[in-house]
Amino acid sequence: MILEIADLRIAPGKQAEFETAIQLAIATVISRAKGYKGATVRQSIESPERYVLQVQWETLEDHTKGFRESPLFSEWRAIIGPFFAAPPNVEHFQEF
Amino acid sequence: MILEIADLRIAPGKQAEFETAIQLAIATVISRAKGYKGATVRQSIESPERYVLQVQWETLEDHTKGFRESPLFSEWRAIIGPFFAAPPNVEHFQEF
Repeated sequence: MILEIADLRIAPGKQAEFETAIQLAIATVISRAKGYKGATVRQSIESPERYVLQVQWETLEDHTKGFRESPLFSEWRAIIGPFFAAPPNVEHFQEF
Repeated sequence: MILEIADLRIAPGKQAEFETAIQLAIATVISRAKGYKGATVRQSIESPERYVLQVQWETLEDHTKGFRESPLFSEWRAIIGPFFAAPPNVEHFQEF
């Protein structure tokens, strides 16, 4: 199991709209991807324009190839991309 | 419930020692703090010197006051601090 951690910066004043959009995008888009095992999204208390999305994937390739190279990725970015104030910072993590 | 996310940079070549140290520090120090609800620590696949520690706290103050102002914090930092290549970046998050 791999954990994707995405650090997102949202345009000021757009947080409420973004929260609705990402919940929709999780429920209707990314959750249909092969190897998707669950997702959480949280807002920073200290930096309210910062959100951390965490997605569990069965394998690294389920995200980097399977999802990102599928039509689902375009749908996903169309829903949440307009709220980004900067490119997301994304890495993948494993427990040891 | 509040999630502390700490972004840690570990000195190159010190990862194995750090992994042992933080597992010890979680099991014997931070887990004794009031309001502690659990912790995970994971290594980045893309940046092997990067680790993300996530600690669940009952309230924000259980971490920022209760833990950080207790003797447990000195014990915690004595065990894992020597491995840091930079000051940790720590924020607190809530689901919405």
